[in-house]
Amino acid sequence: MLGAFSAQRPRLTLSELARKVDMPVSTVHRMLGDLLAWGALERDEQGHYRVGLRLWEVASLAPRGQGLRERALPYLEDLCQMTRENVQLAVREGKDVVFVERIGGSRAVPTLTRVGGRLAITATGAGLVLLAHAPTSVQNEALARPLSRHTPFTLTDTTQIRRALAQVHACGYAVSDRQLSLDTLSVAAPVVGVTGEIEAAVSVVVRHGSMPTGALADLVRTSCRAISRALHTSVP
Amino acid sequence: MLGAFSAQRPRLTLSELARKVDMPVSTVHRMLGDLLAWGALERDEQGHYRVGLRLWEVASLAPRGQGLRERALPYLEDLCQMTRENVQLAVREGKDVVFVERIGGSRAVPTLTRVGGRLAITATGAGLVLLAHAPTSVQNEALARPLSRHTPFTLTDTTQIRRALAQVHACGYAVSDRQLSLDTLSVAAPVVGVTGEIEAAVSVVVRHGSMPTGALADLVRTSCRAISRALHTSVP
Repeated sequence: MLGAFSAQRPRLTLSELARKVDMPVSTVHRMLGDLLAWGALERDEQGHYRVGLRLWEVASLAPRGQGLRERALPYLEDLCQMTRENVQLAVREGKDVVFVERIGGSRAVPTLTRVGGRLAITATGAGLVLLAHAPTSVQNEALARPLSRHTPFTLTDTTQIRRALAQVHACGYAVSDRQLSLDTLSVAAPVVGVTGEIEAAVSVVVRHGSMPTGALADLVRTSCRAISRALHTSVP
Repeated sequence: MLGAFSAQRPRLTLSELARKVDMPVSTVHRMLGDLLAWGALERDEQGHYRVGLRLWEVASLAPRGQGLRERALPYLEDLCQMTRENVQLAVREGKDVVFVERIGGSRAVPTLTRVGGRLAITATGAGLVLLAHAPTSVQNEALARPLSRHTPFTLTDTTQIRRALAQVHACGYAVSDRQLSLDTLSVAAPVVGVTGEIEAAVSVVVRHGSMPTGALADLVRTSCRAISRALHTSVP
């Protein structure tokens, strides 16, 4: 039922909900009673259903969401103040990349990222980092999907993408150059979790051509090292 | 089931969960299967259950959580850069105050706030603002509860609190002076939503005695006005 809500449709009517979950309106109505009572959903002034604050409170306990964000935030803010650009924190969920934080100055280049949103794993710097460190089976699955082309620079050829993933291992960072929109470039590096696995990626998105990627990569990698260290010292 | 998780207990075993929800282990185990499959919950390396990233993704659609946060964030960041102190965004849920955002410099005074967490509505600047603008019935309920004393300065006398609430209406802002911890002072102002109701409060938490409250109140009120204006122009 909760899965019926999306960024495109954050508010739904009873009949829209019933259609989305493919159940009779009466059944959905009864289930809604429980969800409303608990606060998982709320009704707005127009009587539409939307995700409730109580669910958001519980979800803020997700260690890979809010927990990770809380511990990384001071370092992301430092990186943001240093670069005055968009700074993002992302994790891998299956073969997708999910952005758990995005901060940026008001003058930073507009990005497509939304907190809690997913973007193409092969077309974003953070995605390339996470995919490069994923198990081979996940990489194969991710590359077996049809890859959508956002700009003429979007990598859709699997050989090229595999070369980009190898590059991540060789350099310790990933660059996505105008793959998602024509005016942006993102540089990302990995965050190492307590178990030694790559737990997240931090990326900086800048206007294409505004900064040398090497200097940016050094900044991002330094932040990632600081966050990795913080994760190791403060296990919840 | 989801309500069994808390900031104090973000990871639970099967038997802990069954005890919390007061249901047989077998029933809970069956329900867990569905929740894990959907991603509402995850299992960590030790086999403990915790809130999952998928739930966090859906919850990020809550208009009073992430939605409000996203639209307010640029202004909160400006306020944070200006003051170099802790900046918080809070909403009222029933007779409680829930913090939906907290940003702050690494040198800012430590606070008790947690994103997605609740704090005493009568002992925080943001809480006083939200309570002052709440219906009388909510005010009466909030004041009928036993009020816990955090410091010698915590207001627990209902007459004093009612005076503080009247003060919020008279001044347009609230001050909580050492009510929650002996070294902090918070100043908060209201954010007006699209329907003309008070939708949220913004507060700045500083070290007690470090800044005149009047100057701080002017800054917070200016930010609140900017956020209110942004809410009115960008209805989702």
